[in-house]
Amino acid sequence: MGSVKVLGVNGSPRKYGNTFKMLWLALRGADDLGAETRLIHLYDYHLEPCMACYSDNLYECHFPKACPLYERGDKFRELAEAVLWADAIVFATPVYWFMASGKLKTFIDRLTALENMIYHTGRSLLDGKVAGVIAAGEEAGAANALSWMLLTLNMMGFHVPAWGAAYYHGRGDVLENEQATLDAYNVGVAVVRLVKALRGEHAGSEPWYRLDVRERVADLVEELRKIAEEEKEKARETRPWLL
Amino acid sequence: MGSVKVLGVNGSPRKYGNTFKMLWLALRGADDLGAETRLIHLYDYHLEPCMACYSDNLYECHFPKACPLYERGDKFRELAEAVLWADAIVFATPVYWFMASGKLKTFIDRLTALENMIYHTGRSLLDGKVAGVIAAGEEAGAANALSWMLLTLNMMGFHVPAWGAAYYHGRGDVLENEQATLDAYNVGVAVVRLVKALRGEHAGSEPWYRLDVRERVADLVEELRKIAEEEKEKARETRPWLL
Amino acid sequence: MGSVKVLGVNGSPRKYGNTFKMLWLALRGADDLGAETRLIHLYDYHLEPCMACYSDNLYECHFPKACPLYERGDKFRELAEAVLWADAIVFATPVYWFMASGKLKTFIDRLTALENMIYHTGRSLLDGKVAGVIAAGEEAGAANALSWMLLTLNMMGFHVPAWGAAYYHGRGDVLENEQATLDAYNVGVAVVRLVKALRGEHAGSEPWYRLDVRERVADLVEELRKIAEEEKEKARETRPWLL
Amino acid sequence: MGSVKVLGVNGSPRKYGNTFKMLWLALRGADDLGAETRLIHLYDYHLEPCMACYSDNLYECHFPKACPLYERGDKFRELAEAVLWADAIVFATPVYWFMASGKLKTFIDRLTALENMIYHTGRSLLDGKVAGVIAAGEEAGAANALSWMLLTLNMMGFHVPAWGAAYYHGRGDVLENEQATLDAYNVGVAVVRLVKALRGEHAGSEPWYRLDVRERVADLVEELRKIAEEEKEKARETRPWLL
Repeated sequence: MGSVKVLGVNGSPRKYGNTFKMLWLALRGADDLGAETRLIHLYDYHLEPCMACYSDNLYECHFPKACPLYERGDKFRELAEAVLWADAIVFATPVYWFMASGKLKTFIDRLTALENMIYHTGRSLLDGKVAGVIAAGEEAGAANALSWMLLTLNMMGFHVPAWGAAYYHGRGDVLENEQATLDAYNVGVAVVRLVKALRGEHAGSEPWYRLDVRERVADLVEELRKIAEEEKEKARETRPWLL
Repeated sequence: MGSVKVLGVNGSPRKYGNTFKMLWLALRGADDLGAETRLIHLYDYHLEPCMACYSDNLYECHFPKACPLYERGDKFRELAEAVLWADAIVFATPVYWFMASGKLKTFIDRLTALENMIYHTGRSLLDGKVAGVIAAGEEAGAANALSWMLLTLNMMGFHVPAWGAAYYHGRGDVLENEQATLDAYNVGVAVVRLVKALRGEHAGSEPWYRLDVRERVADLVEELRKIAEEEKEKARETRPWLL
Repeated sequence: MGSVKVLGVNGSPRKYGNTFKMLWLALRGADDLGAETRLIHLYDYHLEPCMACYSDNLYECHFPKACPLYERGDKFRELAEAVLWADAIVFATPVYWFMASGKLKTFIDRLTALENMIYHTGRSLLDGKVAGVIAAGEEAGAANALSWMLLTLNMMGFHVPAWGAAYYHGRGDVLENEQATLDAYNVGVAVVRLVKALRGEHAGSEPWYRLDVRERVADLVEELRKIAEEEKEKARETRPWLL
Repeated sequence: MGSVKVLGVNGSPRKYGNTFKMLWLALRGADDLGAETRLIHLYDYHLEPCMACYSDNLYECHFPKACPLYERGDKFRELAEAVLWADAIVFATPVYWFMASGKLKTFIDRLTALENMIYHTGRSLLDGKVAGVIAAGEEAGAANALSWMLLTLNMMGFHVPAWGAAYYHGRGDVLENEQATLDAYNVGVAVVRLVKALRGEHAGSEPWYRLDVRERVADLVEELRKIAEEEKEKARETRPWLL
């Protein structure tokens, strides 16, 4: 079977903000349990909004054949490959107006093609995968974004481990918030443990909410501070308004 | 002051489905009260997802100046003109995965530029407008979409009249559902009454939930049946999978 | 017509916490515009959970006749009197597990009897009233509570003024948060302005989001600090675990 | 270890309605996989609303010691015993005003005492259990109720299996809806499979969304029809308005 494969999906246009930071910590949590990880920034991929072929004709929605959107430079197929590769996926979104970003919503809408294979083959292409969810923002809405993601992913075929959700709501840098960084790290740990349990490997007998990893998380936070700074510097080129 | 101006925003890619039908009925409701109406199909306008300049630098988010997205063929400015023209806006969305469509979410995210003028001039460009909301879909999620839209629009500056929300959830044609067509029509009536009240004109003393308009709605439904059929035929060209 | 009557409903068991404080500020905002205000603490009233007579027989749900719950020491009728007295109601809830409190949910469920009069008389007893909503809590969920309240109240017959919603999410005392105290005060101001507009009185031409009331709010905050302290002291008798 | 223990919690006041029916099917699904099941009707237990001791003093919230509410005839301890007995719990709620019932919300609020043991002992009493969720109602709100339950239970320590959520929204009898009855049955099957996987037993290699159980569900529906009719007859005594 090999190592557990965990994909991180960043739904924020920023590669150095709180959403990215929490996702990075989750992937390091997965990595600490021996998983192979990959982080994708959704904004690197042009995505057309769903055309709702399904509403006209249920069987038109198919992966990889259908989706007339591919002709418009749409990159969904590439993202889908990463989704299919993964055993577990951690979806991270900024909170825009009390909900996930429009980019992430569009991506989730497009995942219908994978879930809809249940009508073509009897099995959703997402059946049995594991999901974790993260939301970060200044204003309210983290719970709204997380709960929406959980229900949607669960109804596409994803299992969700205990404390598979984490959020940060506040003005500042999430790295200053011990609770949020711990929660984020634990999302990555939890998804890997659940994948292992589902494979018949031992899930571990520690509590599912891990309090014994504080020092590890503190070390990772230091490493992440530098990485985020570098990403921020790189970003000045395409985001000249950055203070 | 002139007639009340009502904009209808269709967040569905289909111009003949339940979302469109309910929106059309709402606009006829507004028209019956003397309003001037306009219906916009969001999918006719290319929209880039929000780049979150605001998260880097609050003052970068501005209308009409900022938004580096305009360079990419983005049409937000045109949509914004329609929004600014209107006294009231009825937002209609299909229900995709328990929420509004990604297209509508992206549009709402982009409206931040108008709301953010409060930091530039002391007043949101949406301050004092009136909103109505509609959601239609087969599966669950209408309430989730409506409640999210209501909070968001309210926090951007929109007033919401009593029964300013309507939904349809079901497999079939909304035109066969008396309750839903009545609710949709009433959304349009309500937004106009509220604009008038805010202008100092008489709002009318009838209940805000109108039961006395059933015959009128039944007539409109017959007219709409033909219109939707025509739109569906026209759509076959760009949607060849239509049954 | 007399002064505008505004009822504040506190859905928290504490009469000195953030929920209460924000509600108090909202009522002072209403009072500053000449309204007559009343504040009710839901927890002072025993309320049985809804028995869903409506699901068996639509016409059984009636106010004031039905509701077999009255026999159990249930106080809904008294609360309903206050609701009917009011032109506008500000509902304030603590955030418990990402939602409004069970007490407030139960109260809202029971309001069905007033809304259901539309089937008996053609008009909901709540038709045309105005609502404001407030949510306060440490953890996430304020947006979830607010959006749920907005949709529900709107579908019972309440209009909602622009920025008729306010929240606070944080560990500390809301009185230290200028934004939240300003938002809360503005909810009270907005509901009164909207009632006046609906009566045919002038709504005022200032923006609906008031930035010019900061000093006034700061003064009220000082007054409230003492009041909350007194309420907290009084509470030690029934809440001996208070630190 | 013995058989998997599954508790069903009915949050509806009716023991014969759609909520009960879907829950009964879920428990039969669990039973078909060898689980021991128990069904509890929340309305049989007097429950006081949470007093938020936690907001005054984090450590006051404790199970089984604290909760001054026990003195008022409150039955939470009995319900908690059932919760602790179970490996998996299926929570079923009617949809009242776009959300779970006030009764269920109050019960969930009270579960804080079990989750809060993490501050006393380092482990939530709910850590590692498995949850399924069901919502049934005429009007919209099923998704809202389900998503709220999923996030809340997940953040208390529950894992959620793929398709661990099911709903029915419609006017009629859920037993006439093949999809909804299948979904409900599958919730019970899924929670048992996940408990087994977490114990190190084989989870089974069939898809997590089971299409091969249609005949079994059809048989159970026939059995349930009679049971529900009997429960309805019994209920006439305490619900004389039943048509």
